[in-house]
Amino acid sequence: MVALDIGGTKLEAARVRGDGAVLSRNRLPTPATDAAALWDAVSRLVEEMMGGDEPIAAVGVGCGGPMSAAGDRVSPLNIPAWRDFPLRQRIADRFGVSTYVDNDAKALALAEGWRGAARGVGDYLAMVVSTGVGGGVVCGGRLLGGADGNAGHIGHVIVEPAGRRCGCGAVGCLEAEASGTAIAAITGAPAAAAPPEIRERTGTLVGRAVGSVANLLDLRLAVVAGSVALGFGDVFFEAAQRELDRVARLDFSRGARIVPAGCGADGPVLGAAAVGFRGIGSPVTDR
Amino acid sequence: MVALDIGGTKLEAARVRGDGAVLSRNRLPTPATDAAALWDAVSRLVEEMMGGDEPIAAVGVGCGGPMSAAGDRVSPLNIPAWRDFPLRQRIADRFGVSTYVDNDAKALALAEGWRGAARGVGDYLAMVVSTGVGGGVVCGGRLLGGADGNAGHIGHVIVEPAGRRCGCGAVGCLEAEASGTAIAAITGAPAAAAPPEIRERTGTLVGRAVGSVANLLDLRLAVVAGSVALGFGDVFFEAAQRELDRVARLDFSRGARIVPAGCGADGPVLGAAAVGFRGIGSPVTDR
Repeated sequence: MVALDIGGTKLEAARVRGDGAVLSRNRLPTPATDAAALWDAVSRLVEEMMGGDEPIAAVGVGCGGPMSAAGDRVSPLNIPAWRDFPLRQRIADRFGVSTYVDNDAKALALAEGWRGAARGVGDYLAMVVSTGVGGGVVCGGRLLGGADGNAGHIGHVIVEPAGRRCGCGAVGCLEAEASGTAIAAITGAPAAAAPPEIRERTGTLVGRAVGSVANLLDLRLAVVAGSVALGFGDVFFEAAQRELDRVARLDFSRGARIVPAGCGADGPVLGAAAVGFRGIGSPVTDR
Repeated sequence: MVALDIGGTKLEAARVRGDGAVLSRNRLPTPATDAAALWDAVSRLVEEMMGGDEPIAAVGVGCGGPMSAAGDRVSPLNIPAWRDFPLRQRIADRFGVSTYVDNDAKALALAEGWRGAARGVGDYLAMVVSTGVGGGVVCGGRLLGGADGNAGHIGHVIVEPAGRRCGCGAVGCLEAEASGTAIAAITGAPAAAAPPEIRERTGTLVGRAVGSVANLLDLRLAVVAGSVALGFGDVFFEAAQRELDRVARLDFSRGARIVPAGCGADGPVLGAAAVGFRGIGSPVTDR
């Protein structure tokens, strides 16, 4: 499987085996505002990965949202160069292989169930707390899609009804309080420089959203990736777990845990590969 | 199908055809504190419905939660007489037919997709705002179960982080603010006597929880049943829709609607029947 992760900062491609082994990989910075340069970089990376001894079954792609159903047209929030870009078709046409595209946070959820911190778990939430806040929900072993493929947007669960206005227009969304962008707006400095009380508050609000989801969907595990969460470290995860303990108190949700994602730097390409394996009817699983 | 709804106030049984027609029905008050009288009433009702020209394929049951996976042991909150009661097995043994049990709010979700306000919709939330607040979530045409069959508990989504303590122990759950029990505690009078501002506030908080769920799960329809919601009427639904419009503002959640359930008084038995049809591998659908 050729796996391709398209983010606002970097593009990364890899050749990934069915057991999750990453055979080769490469990355390039994302030319986020130049559509021609961006497509050029994407096709160069995919082309490199096409070489090799075994034939390539398909290309799997994780990409920032929003996108139309099945990822036919992508408009990644952080990549202004692409609006309604026909990514799936362009890759399929250029390389003559089946191509599958999904939201990068949903892809991460697949990766975490396959090779990460949610191995063997049928019901869990995976989320990314970074520039924005995204996620994917697995219920009964299936990644939820929702009406248009956008299920998992935990960044827009309300956590502070009298809080900040979100980019979406609502007030008090998790993303409006806990994303890197929000933290920079609140503190006047990059999230990486946030003081301990902000790190703790961010964890608390993430834990609150996770608690609502644990109660709603009868799940007991949230795995969290993203530079803000991982950068904030223990103070973030301890606060998140404390709040989750306060909120998830039903017989079935009590004991829910919130933990760092397990795939580390491989998460994005493993997720993209998982999107591809699911696409060709060989969904990855570790159950 | 013989359908049986077990509530804290009444027991109701019906014979329901595969197209949703209710052929006959009966109801009895629930002897909530006398286990022997309760079982006696249940078996009397089911027995009555067993008569008739066509053979009975199965018994489907909707029952108040909590319950163990597959409804093998039920402990309905409002029926103290039953704690870990082996309802499914008892009915199956007594009548010699396959019996299927699920949570009554999840059953209602099935009924609403089959014959109610969610016909033809693949992604929706059904909820009950009554003494308590419960619900069921359908995603991609499937009723979500969750790890132990308890998915749909929208009553424990946080809507007022600095609000009232819930029976579950958390603070600010929807159920702690919007259930009949909560409203009676807040106003000092039965929910039916609540003043307009409480009716409106209840709608607002329900709309807020629904908005979080619409954003999280990419769905655009919530159907609401239950004596509190339906009794509060327009002022409730208008406030709920206003708050939902304020919260559900993503491309995919904008335009989400919250409407009264469509099955009316038939909801509980149609839901129980749907649990039975799903059990025998003939899931009901109107898609």
